[in-house]
Amino acid sequence: MRKQLLLTPGPTPVPPEVSLAMAVPIIHHRTSEYRAIFEEVIKGLKYVFQTENDVFTFASSGTGAMESAVVNLLSPKDKVITVEGGKFGERWTEICKSYGIEPIVIEVPWGEAVEPEEIAQILEKNSQIKAVFTTLCETSTGVVNDVRRIAEITAKHKAVLVVDAISALASIELRTDAWGVDIVVAGSQKGLMLPPGLSFLSISPKAWELVKEAKSPRYYFDLKEAKKALEKIDTPFTPAVTLIIGLREALRLIQKEGLENIWERHALMAEATRKAMLALGLELFAKAPSDAVTAVKVPQGIDGENLVKLLRQKYGVSIAGGQAELKGKVFRIAHMGYITPEDILLTLSCLEIALNEMGFKTPLGKGVKVAEEIFSRG
Amino acid sequence: MRKQLLLTPGPTPVPPEVSLAMAVPIIHHRTSEYRAIFEEVIKGLKYVFQTENDVFTFASSGTGAMESAVVNLLSPKDKVITVEGGKFGERWTEICKSYGIEPIVIEVPWGEAVEPEEIAQILEKNSQIKAVFTTLCETSTGVVNDVRRIAEITAKHKAVLVVDAISALASIELRTDAWGVDIVVAGSQKGLMLPPGLSFLSISPKAWELVKEAKSPRYYFDLKEAKKALEKIDTPFTPAVTLIIGLREALRLIQKEGLENIWERHALMAEATRKAMLALGLELFAKAPSDAVTAVKVPQGIDGENLVKLLRQKYGVSIAGGQAELKGKVFRIAHMGYITPEDILLTLSCLEIALNEMGFKTPLGKGVKVAEEIFSRG
Repeated sequence: MRKQLLLTPGPTPVPPEVSLAMAVPIIHHRTSEYRAIFEEVIKGLKYVFQTENDVFTFASSGTGAMESAVVNLLSPKDKVITVEGGKFGERWTEICKSYGIEPIVIEVPWGEAVEPEEIAQILEKNSQIKAVFTTLCETSTGVVNDVRRIAEITAKHKAVLVVDAISALASIELRTDAWGVDIVVAGSQKGLMLPPGLSFLSISPKAWELVKEAKSPRYYFDLKEAKKALEKIDTPFTPAVTLIIGLREALRLIQKEGLENIWERHALMAEATRKAMLALGLELFAKAPSDAVTAVKVPQGIDGENLVKLLRQKYGVSIAGGQAELKGKVFRIAHMGYITPEDILLTLSCLEIALNEMGFKTPLGKGVKVAEEIFSRG
Repeated sequence: MRKQLLLTPGPTPVPPEVSLAMAVPIIHHRTSEYRAIFEEVIKGLKYVFQTENDVFTFASSGTGAMESAVVNLLSPKDKVITVEGGKFGERWTEICKSYGIEPIVIEVPWGEAVEPEEIAQILEKNSQIKAVFTTLCETSTGVVNDVRRIAEITAKHKAVLVVDAISALASIELRTDAWGVDIVVAGSQKGLMLPPGLSFLSISPKAWELVKEAKSPRYYFDLKEAKKALEKIDTPFTPAVTLIIGLREALRLIQKEGLENIWERHALMAEATRKAMLALGLELFAKAPSDAVTAVKVPQGIDGENLVKLLRQKYGVSIAGGQAELKGKVFRIAHMGYITPEDILLTLSCLEIALNEMGFKTPLGKGVKVAEEIFSRG
């Protein structure tokens, strides 16, 4: 007998209330019944995004909403800043280039956060820059960027700030309106506790001014059509009905727990995970670690891919390996969405056993003890 | 107490086996477990598409796959043919124009099928045309186009044939390879018996030659990246995991029943529906009616929108009203996917009661009798 515990940074576990809501017989989307559900969802999303702006919903993975941000704001040859430093930061550069938009790329070493002043300096020198693209939590490295400070900087310029919060929303602090983030992009399969298949985009009036003049070709991800539909509590194309119905349940759970409490839970789980790793003699990969996912360096002599496989196949605990240039070099433990301190304790336990089994000798129970102490602080 | 019966042309009912499969705890997509599921899905899709070509899967509504076909085949200023004649035919024109592609539009009166010879004549005169975009079953009018004949025509030219089979696949006959259809686009929420949120695209070697030189900008719907991923039984971006898992179950059900049997079941339900409508003194809207959905003219003096509402709210039977210029003028009964002759009998019964209730006097039981006779032929 083997129970499965999922601690990957997307998909994250789906609460049973959400799974059950999605399993009831499907309904048609052009009905008052569906409209009432979608209306509640729109309201709930504004709470989670901490915004009064419109929040649009697409049937797509998070990358779809990223593409929507690029094509709706910009025209070919437009100048923008993209912040790299991980696989998802690089995606902004790739999307921009695909549409003939010209990014000034800030290459941040993987594992580090961007220095906000670097963005400020480029903006000072290039008044024609229309947008800054960055990432709140870079899932591939476990780094959190100082979006609050970056927003203070972009607020002084004509450039809008676009933040990939796919693996951050409803996990770590993000105050869209209070901080002045123009566009926030998110996905369903992280803090929102849903399966993958929905993406979201909130947009400020400042950013909407750019939409009016943007000439990049677009259709499925076009925001002008989406806006016309949203005014009638609708979407231009058939919505992913079951995921929207699940989202209503997930948003209810989030509102019940409260965003501040959710952020606190994530911070606590992240602190426990980090301190446990250090107690085991492991090294963290991120210099500015996010509270949504912890990336840990694979110790010398251990095969990182095999460690992840062993944990999943023998202990039922799914964590993630490294992506792209970090393949085999880090493992990543998500504390994101429907994950509790108890899940972290169990994961740490199994990790201790697996590490020893693979030849990395570390005292059993040492990391768990540290985590227990942190969770016991009350 | 009220039971709900869904006969809208998407979403269509989801079989309980599929709903249950989607309700089990979610798994990560970069695992051997998921890959085995996706591998089975890819094989099953080839069967349903009746093709040996690659079939790509996107997390999006069907329109996303339509956009993918346009942007991956063509460059700005390219000449194409689009066949209108309904809301979804018009969508091909809209997408092409959004990307600066220049369509020669064949405007077919709503309710009629395109005359294949008209396509032949335009192709004869314009050797630079790169693609012909049409629809197999035009959901908005209930019309079926003669795609088999159109494919014979395009086969003689350099132009590729792109068919929107969103509401046709796994409902009515479509033999992608045998007929020579270069690109077939489909969605999950019709004959595939899934909730909305997945779209599909099959592509022939002839069409792939165009992909190599197409210059339309694209990222999320890019087929070159999708092809690289598919070779590793993967997708470039996070797949809609639960829908893929549901799709495996749906494909198993389809393979068990057999495509020919499925087409026959749909043809039988469509025949019964059409003959019942005529028996009630109603008129069909489509001159070339599809076996996936029947569009019926709303009789004089009856409010079509209210008829649909009455059926849903009082009898629990959801059919669809008209779209765009047909709003209030037709109602549409789907016999598509997880719908049986018994569902049609019940729908006809309730429709007879509702029509009389609204003032359209027709003998109770007369349409149902005709349908029963057809289903009794054995």
